[in-house]
Amino acid sequence: MKRPAKQVMPELQKIRHFVMNIIYQSEGKKVKLPSLRTLSAEFGLGASTIKQEFDRLEREGYLVSRHGVGVFTNPKQYFFPETKLPLVGIKLYQGDAYFYDATLMKMIAELMSALSAFPCNVHMLTAGCTTVEELDVELRHSHIDALVTVSVEPELTAFAASRMPAVNIGYPCPETDSVVFRGEAAGRELAELLCGARRSPRVLQLNDSRNIDGFRQALENDGRIRCSGSSGSVPAGELEPLLRGGDHDCVITHSKNIAFIHKFFGRNRPDAIPRLVAIDDGIYPDFPDCFYLAMPRQEAARLTAARLAELLGCREARPPFERILEHKLCRHHSQS
Amino acid sequence: MKRPAKQVMPELQKIRHFVMNIIYQSEGKKVKLPSLRTLSAEFGLGASTIKQEFDRLEREGYLVSRHGVGVFTNPKQYFFPETKLPLVGIKLYQGDAYFYDATLMKMIAELMSALSAFPCNVHMLTAGCTTVEELDVELRHSHIDALVTVSVEPELTAFAASRMPAVNIGYPCPETDSVVFRGEAAGRELAELLCGARRSPRVLQLNDSRNIDGFRQALENDGRIRCSGSSGSVPAGELEPLLRGGDHDCVITHSKNIAFIHKFFGRNRPDAIPRLVAIDDGIYPDFPDCFYLAMPRQEAARLTAARLAELLGCREARPPFERILEHKLCRHHSQS
Repeated sequence: MKRPAKQVMPELQKIRHFVMNIIYQSEGKKVKLPSLRTLSAEFGLGASTIKQEFDRLEREGYLVSRHGVGVFTNPKQYFFPETKLPLVGIKLYQGDAYFYDATLMKMIAELMSALSAFPCNVHMLTAGCTTVEELDVELRHSHIDALVTVSVEPELTAFAASRMPAVNIGYPCPETDSVVFRGEAAGRELAELLCGARRSPRVLQLNDSRNIDGFRQALENDGRIRCSGSSGSVPAGELEPLLRGGDHDCVITHSKNIAFIHKFFGRNRPDAIPRLVAIDDGIYPDFPDCFYLAMPRQEAARLTAARLAELLGCREARPPFERILEHKLCRHHSQS
Repeated sequence: MKRPAKQVMPELQKIRHFVMNIIYQSEGKKVKLPSLRTLSAEFGLGASTIKQEFDRLEREGYLVSRHGVGVFTNPKQYFFPETKLPLVGIKLYQGDAYFYDATLMKMIAELMSALSAFPCNVHMLTAGCTTVEELDVELRHSHIDALVTVSVEPELTAFAASRMPAVNIGYPCPETDSVVFRGEAAGRELAELLCGARRSPRVLQLNDSRNIDGFRQALENDGRIRCSGSSGSVPAGELEPLLRGGDHDCVITHSKNIAFIHKFFGRNRPDAIPRLVAIDDGIYPDFPDCFYLAMPRQEAARLTAARLAELLGCREARPPFERILEHKLCRHHSQS
């Protein structure tokens, strides 16, 4: 077999997605595909290359070719039941099929898990579109019936929601069904806890808290707490000077830093190890004296899936849905 | 802003992935990107279109441009720590960012969840490649450091494992680290259970059992059981005649059929409702008298993530790893 050139691979994927989309839209009917010549012109690929992909799709059962007549979708294809299942898109901020972020990965895992419990298919949207015009193209291109957006900008989410059933997870988005995370309650709880042990506790924040709306604010607004720290992410090399700098009662940081900080204090000031609070970023080190600020992802995913099922199951408009889920301050980490 | 043409979207994604891959490989160093003219020729896109994507990547913090000098990767980009995290690929059978199958979706959800617990990034491979030559192109193109394959053909899995740390989930694959699912134990357990209630129980199988190696065999090999049923997937319309056909003690089928079957017997033969066994396909209806054949996905995902962490953490060759996980016959469904 001819070795495929590097640049041909993504092109063949386009042919495959093109065919898959036609099958998906066919609702179990036999649909004739455009001729090789037409597709060749449209995709800028040789007809023989397209033919090769068609042959493979035929072997896989997606297509049926009738000599001299044309190539058709196979209405018996097993993953298309009699009644077409809704195709739910999941769109991430700067959507990519890359997951560089344990928090996001964990959220997607919970979403997929929750969506697998009701009859739908899922399409992970991958285009990195950032304007309404581009999202419009992406949504039309992906043929989805409903959408879940995760940390997507409100403007884009609102546009998507105007086009199809959509649920937004993360930040508030006016007039759009949303599951919103807040951290105020956890912030106040931590403040009480710290003030119980000491009159004006000093808190060092080593995280950007962007995903924990209200948590930092609740601590800073509490007149008894003295907060310091960085407002951005802290590189590992800069942790040590910050830790040396003050006599802190509590250090709040991403889970990934906890092991280092724990070791640092054990070595340098074993008698004054501060209370550690790990921001739940999907990585869970096991430290007995550490609190976790846990994101209610599983609950968010379940609420989202249930709401989508409701929206897909009815034709009438529904009153806007908003659920506010509070981060939880946990003593022992639970994997939920 | 100019409305992007339908066909430009995937091209812009290529530019984005091209840049992301360079950043990913840069290990935190500042890397100069090729000129717009070079990229224009390579991707067949106008220089102004590429410039537009570069501008966006700059706004997002991935790139830094120096007037008259060139465009560079931004070594401070927050998701790239000082030490480059391994990028783990997940490759599915007929890989696509579409999930048409609740079983697969649930497996991916568990995998992502397990992988999020150790420091790595994840890239979902999307090309539908089916030959070793194509996989070679895909692996080179995706720059991953390790791979998890799910229900991928043994030949492809073995090839991938010869190139990088790889763990295979699903079917046995010689000489390749594998987590294999088996159903014999559950099959024998069900046989004992049914034979305890009746001398030669009749079992109706309404599933293709492809993913439950050994389960069907264990039932059929038990001399006391009389098995009948279909060897392929059964369309909903054909369920009823099969159910009317015989006086069954047990019906084994996909979870999605359970509600229908339960209702059918309740209406037609409420005195002789057979034992129902639901094949765990990710959808969990709640029936009190139903057994579930549960796939040990969570355990498989955890074993896989732990093995990958081990492989990525050492340079020496390791003896082959194989874990056989048995499906479990559960009385009450547990979400794990």
